[in-house]
Amino acid sequence: MSRTFALVIEYDGTDFAGSQLQPNARTVQGVLEETLAGLLGQAPRVRLAGRTDSGVHALGQVAAFETESALGAEAIMRALNALLPEDLAVGRAWRAEAGFDPRRQALSRVYRYVIYNRRERSPLWRGRAWHIPGSLEREAVEECLAQLPGRRDFASFSASQPAGKGSVRDLRRAELRQQGDLLCLEFEANAFLPHQVRRTAGALVEAGRGRLTPLAFQGFLEHPVYNSAGPAAPPEGLYLVAVRYPADGENSEDLFAESGGIVQGLARP
Amino acid sequence: MSRTFALVIEYDGTDFAGSQLQPNARTVQGVLEETLAGLLGQAPRVRLAGRTDSGVHALGQVAAFETESALGAEAIMRALNALLPEDLAVGRAWRAEAGFDPRRQALSRVYRYVIYNRRERSPLWRGRAWHIPGSLEREAVEECLAQLPGRRDFASFSASQPAGKGSVRDLRRAELRQQGDLLCLEFEANAFLPHQVRRTAGALVEAGRGRLTPLAFQGFLEHPVYNSAGPAAPPEGLYLVAVRYPADGENSEDLFAESGGIVQGLARP
Repeated sequence: MSRTFALVIEYDGTDFAGSQLQPNARTVQGVLEETLAGLLGQAPRVRLAGRTDSGVHALGQVAAFETESALGAEAIMRALNALLPEDLAVGRAWRAEAGFDPRRQALSRVYRYVIYNRRERSPLWRGRAWHIPGSLEREAVEECLAQLPGRRDFASFSASQPAGKGSVRDLRRAELRQQGDLLCLEFEANAFLPHQVRRTAGALVEAGRGRLTPLAFQGFLEHPVYNSAGPAAPPEGLYLVAVRYPADGENSEDLFAESGGIVQGLARP
Repeated sequence: MSRTFALVIEYDGTDFAGSQLQPNARTVQGVLEETLAGLLGQAPRVRLAGRTDSGVHALGQVAAFETESALGAEAIMRALNALLPEDLAVGRAWRAEAGFDPRRQALSRVYRYVIYNRRERSPLWRGRAWHIPGSLEREAVEECLAQLPGRRDFASFSASQPAGKGSVRDLRRAELRQQGDLLCLEFEANAFLPHQVRRTAGALVEAGRGRLTPLAFQGFLEHPVYNSAGPAAPPEGLYLVAVRYPADGENSEDLFAESGGIVQGLARP
């Protein structure tokens, strides 16, 4: 009998060529499928909640797969954490409903973008944050940020229209938190356009640098034109923090709490 | 004319065989001296405020050296940050008084020990925190921690007597902060015995696990015997956060503020 399992996974995106399977490249999906094949004796197809680019990290990516194996969720998690490379781990595993699709069934995604705003570079934040050496006008960033929440056409913050889904998304939360030299942008939406978070972070930094007025930022939202806002912030500052699902008994609230890891302190003071 | 410069440096200790010069090993002092030799045309001897072991990180280590070069502090910092490897950087540089000794002149050192307390391992905290999968009794840790501050004989928390300096140190601050899965111990003292912070963290975790009573912990302080408390916590959770100096005009307060980087959010909420 085939059963469906779901995993919350964490990864350091530095050495992955992104999340989605690609020939001749080390990807999150590829490493998971290979490791599961070794463990389960069959190669399952792994489905991921969100697509992340090379260099992008995840604290709470969600994966699902089917298996005929008799192993339980706990045993699968333990075995995976023993077998997976050190830049990828499972934080939680559970038996999901048959055919659970972590992408289609998600209610919302939470992304965080971390900026290290100090003149000199930081060895401990390398590959984990975007280094902005110059000063940023926090008020300008806040003014732009306040315009984002709502059901809006975010075409300006993406390169081109994704097939068949339009460019309207429901952005539920857009926040900035600062602790010392670290600026942390956090966004929650039902879904995001490709590169939307990185392009939004890029535009917000332009505003902070005084190169983009809050009025011009507003124009991106009022007159949605593909590819007009940007440039995209680099991948290493981006974290997929959590994916939220409809309440299904035990899993819903816990899932959202799976935002541990490197920048936890920042976003949950 | 020879001039003395001081640097605040940050490093990811993972790929260093510690801070102090060793033949045939990659050390912080060695890399700094080589890079300065290339920059200044002479090989200066670099003095460091604190000795850190392999795997131990620094947010605010302090270094000093003499040079005949005409370069100013700003130019030296800029050039070093262009030339140094990515796991080592200079956060600040200034011209110091002649013969400034960052070790002997320090008033106090601040160390932080980071514990990642979740059942499964974390890819993003690997090499940056001690992973403790089991639960820790926070009250027991706090009870032990409260016994530490003061001018005390800390021999129990070190392997053997350092040459000629005894084992009494003035521990000014011992704190625990928690944010989600992260536990952060922070200590400030005039100076520390070798491995004192790691052995203290190790004993506190034993207390949190219920394997060491607060009364037994008290015994280590009341009856100082070398090598009795431990085992030492692993190096990757340890950070040299800052070194404090007597007020010398502009530098004193700022130096202490040099505690940016990876766990900043934790200790300064």
